[in-house]
Amino acid sequence: MENLAWSKKEKQITRQAFNKAYEKETKYLYNRTKEMVSTSKSPEDIWELHDFLTEKRKEVDNKYDYRYSVLIFALGRLISEGWITKDDLKGLGQEKINKIEQVAKFYRE
Amino acid sequence: MENLAWSKKEKQITRQAFNKAYEKETKYLYNRTKEMVSTSKSPEDIWELHDFLTEKRKEVDNKYDYRYSVLIFALGRLISEGWITKDDLKGLGQEKINKIEQVAKFYRE
Repeated sequence: MENLAWSKKEKQITRQAFNKAYEKETKYLYNRTKEMVSTSKSPEDIWELHDFLTEKRKEVDNKYDYRYSVLIFALGRLISEGWITKDDLKGLGQEKINKIEQVAKFYRE
Repeated sequence: MENLAWSKKEKQITRQAFNKAYEKETKYLYNRTKEMVSTSKSPEDIWELHDFLTEKRKEVDNKYDYRYSVLIFALGRLISEGWITKDDLKGLGQEKINKIEQVAKFYRE
């Protein structure tokens, strides 16, 4: 996968898909945070919130890795988790689409 | 300070003071968290909240150190930051009170 070439148009498409996914996921985490705060029963629950955000931050940092050598994996994972759909990748070469779908399937299983 | 002896009564007093300070500080952090969430302008502000909680957690872990060898320092710091008052330490030996006040003064300066 490291040797795949990405055209200028393909780079634009993937960048857009990344941004969309990141925005959606961040918004989800923000809503979860609001929910955790509003349903907390004790001030000490902020440490639980902190644990949650620490874990999610690591996950997000790891997931949104825009190096071309790992882009197929990153996009497959984003599809498997529902942050983007196949439609968001329209315009990529078929070989790439196929590989991304394989990765998404692998994550889902 | 490491060689100070703490009577059973003194241990009870300091334990109570610690608990009171921890409760007050945690409640303050909880209110700050609620405030940060409610005034945030973008979902991405959760990372700022995470930074804040990471820093405060380190600070709290460091501050609430109930080893007798460092208790004078811990109590002095709690007084200097306003989480407890001199009244909360009524019943401790005068030597200890004096040392705690010296530490509090040191922190304030």
